[in-house]
Amino acid sequence: MNSSIIRYILGSVLKIEAVFMILPCFVAVVYHEKNGIYYLIVSVISFIVGMLMSRKKPDKYIFYLKEGCVATALSWIFLSIFGALPFWLSGEIPSYIDALFETVSGFTTTGSSILSNVEALSHCALFWRSFTHWIGGMGVLVFLLAIIPLSGGSDINLMRAESPGPSVGKFVPKIKYTAQILYLIYFVMTTAEIFLLIMGKMPVFDAITLSFGTAGTGGFGIKNNSIAGYSPYHQWIITIFMILFGVNFNAYYLILFKKLKKALKMEEVRAYFLIIFLAVAIITGSLIRTDMGFCTALRHAAFQVGSIITTTGYATINFDAWSQTCRTILVLLMFIGACAGSTGGGIKVSRFIVLIKTVMKELNSFIHPKSIRKIKMDDKQVEHEVVRSINVYFTTFTLIFILSLFAISLEGHDLVTNFTAIAATINNIGPGLNMVGPECNFGFFNNFSKLVMIFDMLAGRLELFPLLILFHPGIWKEFLAQKVSEKRNNKEFRLQNTRAERECASPGGFLFDRK
Amino acid sequence: MNSSIIRYILGSVLKIEAVFMILPCFVAVVYHEKNGIYYLIVSVISFIVGMLMSRKKPDKYIFYLKEGCVATALSWIFLSIFGALPFWLSGEIPSYIDALFETVSGFTTTGSSILSNVEALSHCALFWRSFTHWIGGMGVLVFLLAIIPLSGGSDINLMRAESPGPSVGKFVPKIKYTAQILYLIYFVMTTAEIFLLIMGKMPVFDAITLSFGTAGTGGFGIKNNSIAGYSPYHQWIITIFMILFGVNFNAYYLILFKKLKKALKMEEVRAYFLIIFLAVAIITGSLIRTDMGFCTALRHAAFQVGSIITTTGYATINFDAWSQTCRTILVLLMFIGACAGSTGGGIKVSRFIVLIKTVMKELNSFIHPKSIRKIKMDDKQVEHEVVRSINVYFTTFTLIFILSLFAISLEGHDLVTNFTAIAATINNIGPGLNMVGPECNFGFFNNFSKLVMIFDMLAGRLELFPLLILFHPGIWKEFLAQKVSEKRNNKEFRLQNTRAERECASPGGFLFDRK
Repeated sequence: MNSSIIRYILGSVLKIEAVFMILPCFVAVVYHEKNGIYYLIVSVISFIVGMLMSRKKPDKYIFYLKEGCVATALSWIFLSIFGALPFWLSGEIPSYIDALFETVSGFTTTGSSILSNVEALSHCALFWRSFTHWIGGMGVLVFLLAIIPLSGGSDINLMRAESPGPSVGKFVPKIKYTAQILYLIYFVMTTAEIFLLIMGKMPVFDAITLSFGTAGTGGFGIKNNSIAGYSPYHQWIITIFMILFGVNFNAYYLILFKKLKKALKMEEVRAYFLIIFLAVAIITGSLIRTDMGFCTALRHAAFQVGSIITTTGYATINFDAWSQTCRTILVLLMFIGACAGSTGGGIKVSRFIVLIKTVMKELNSFIHPKSIRKIKMDDKQVEHEVVRSINVYFTTFTLIFILSLFAISLEGHDLVTNFTAIAATINNIGPGLNMVGPECNFGFFNNFSKLVMIFDMLAGRLELFPLLILFHPGIWKEFLAQKVSEKRNNKEFRLQNTRAERECASPGGFLFDRK
Repeated sequence: MNSSIIRYILGSVLKIEAVFMILPCFVAVVYHEKNGIYYLIVSVISFIVGMLMSRKKPDKYIFYLKEGCVATALSWIFLSIFGALPFWLSGEIPSYIDALFETVSGFTTTGSSILSNVEALSHCALFWRSFTHWIGGMGVLVFLLAIIPLSGGSDINLMRAESPGPSVGKFVPKIKYTAQILYLIYFVMTTAEIFLLIMGKMPVFDAITLSFGTAGTGGFGIKNNSIAGYSPYHQWIITIFMILFGVNFNAYYLILFKKLKKALKMEEVRAYFLIIFLAVAIITGSLIRTDMGFCTALRHAAFQVGSIITTTGYATINFDAWSQTCRTILVLLMFIGACAGSTGGGIKVSRFIVLIKTVMKELNSFIHPKSIRKIKMDDKQVEHEVVRSINVYFTTFTLIFILSLFAISLEGHDLVTNFTAIAATINNIGPGLNMVGPECNFGFFNNFSKLVMIFDMLAGRLELFPLLILFHPGIWKEFLAQKVSEKRNNKEFRLQNTRAERECASPGGFLFDRK
């Protein structure tokens, strides 16, 4: 276990957070809010701690998938612990667990809130809340990779651990440029949304914060009624952008490089739009049967479907009051989630496609026991290893879901509340049904349940395993073993190093070079 | 596709049902009920249809897994269609769909009822309802294998398709004797329960019908309040037998042949008792906190846990009124289900053990990417193929669950009712929560929802794939292709036959010999 590189990455992440936290200070200056001082204080503390941690360069530059996972999980935990401090210090959220819940909900782009009255928050707090969505959407480590001068092959292990979806492709040979292209697309799309919202006469502050929430598929609103108070034009713009941010970013990359045909042929993207179309059609049909007109029904249906499938979590209406069919569709959409490689959460459309194809293959094997058919996606064969890891992902997801459901059921709320609260947090959506419906909040849960849901939000965002391995005793044993080995003499250490370098040639291990 | 052997098996199954249906006629004679005549009529019709179907011996004796699956699925459908006729003809259940629901619920050992007042039924109807549980528990094809003179290797394909659980072991080289031993254990245990219940002064009729329901882990009661009206002694006897019938029958086989140590070491059986112990402990603790005494709390907790985990579905109390923690535990137990190789339903304890071990293995592979660890169970390596099929099973189960939940949500009942109704039928349990709680019934659903749940009950009992392949167009294409090939001349037919015989040497195909 290379703990020095982990320490170095954590330090860098804290320095980035310190820089990001300057922004709410500016907001505080603009709105003459005294609370800005807390953001400045925490920013300085973060920077100092980050400096201390990253001052000493790492001893070794070998970087395995496990280090990538541990670094990612700890980065997100550190980010959240420091990110929650201003809410707590300023007294805007008096309980630290509540502040942590809100911050984790922000960074993981969940959007579940413990606040009953968000309009009482200062502008700088509202800005920071929404900005955490934007940072968390694309990932802070991807940001790190985009700016710091690291090269070699091992950085993909960081990206793999942080990016949503079953597989990460590199657009270009160097991860650094891939990360820069991703952030560029992300930035341009966010700016476009801000611009279009302002064109519709939305106040600049609202346009910026809501666009952050859309881009990260987060869902923190700045009004108590979420998006219900804005004009139909604004609601449509947000609907379109929510759905666009749920698309696999590979598609945008392909469009950017004029491979439109290939982008349009992506099976996952097609399935994603098909699901959205069907869900909107059924819900619109159901809403028309009440006293709603077609245009209004279509707008609310499209908004809510877009919001739930992309795991954003904004609302223009109390969908908890809709018919059972509509509510059931929304619950199912919660689990499907957005495309892999987007900023959205959930199990992901591509995983469902592979799972359905696995079932079809199994049925065929009953009829033609000797035929060997491979699962294909986008005309390429899906590797056995990918199918296996998707199956394991699905099982792990279910087990965590079951244990969490049981843990929060100890508190005694009703089954629909508990079930949708876990679904909304582990899939990084935001609102659920009943007591956690779009007009309610998560504040009533006790601290134990909140910690369970904090775990679920992080597990959901980091695709389960990077967080889970923190709880594996093997990791901590390795840390201890390393401390012992560090005491050995130099000769032995060199031998070890050579062996490790040889291992790097094999998959799973990479050499990490500084330029 | 060897359709003649399928026809032959279906005919034999109908003949067996005709014989079984004589029993309710006897009951009708004892209680002087005129309704017995309908059982006699249907018995005669079944026998004639069965005779006609099995009169002509099959053309070929080659028997693959797909024929086994198709024969099993169609057998269960035919059994249910004929088995429902007496309820409908006698007018005791006026709607045929309702009668079919009740019969499928009986044969699949689900125990969900559409009747609001079972006490109004005649004795022969009550007897037939409970007897379907007993037949369905061990399986009618296993019965067929135990009595008809078939040998060779292909009969295991029938047994595989019908037996609950991920893998079927043969106790002894000949399937016929395995089937006989299974039915012997089943018969002796049922008789023991009847005897013990009568010892506690339960009326003979009640003892027989309730024991049938326990043995098959079915759950049809003969009183409106299920088991609540019987003495604590009776409740304890039923509790113990429910739990015993949920144990893997391999364990009894081992005990029978004096391998007690090996039986006690079975991982699945240990996990099963551990889960029961934990669930009973938590629920007893929760019930004591209300005004219930320890003994009463323990009795109700043990009964309900035993009833739900073994997927029986009897009740001694309205557990729908229990605390959320208890209700959540019961919902989770619904999915876990009993041991593989028992008469119980659900996903099965052994599948969960393998799934959990898969997740642990995955976590380890993050830390030691190059270690190759195999999943073990009972100190034996679990074949990759078994792990894969369990993963596929789990995925398929979830997809059917999701589609069913959506289908019945169209009717507009609440989410807990819909969710637990599907859980209770696909896992072959019986009661759910809310509108399908232990004091309610399934009669209020519309015919479409009832058909969905009929499908789910059959799918759950037959472990999904045997039923699903009936819906695969490939099967029907093969039927048609066969009709064409039958028109070919004898020479070609012989050639085909030789090729088929060669195939039989490979796994998946077997030669089917009559003695």
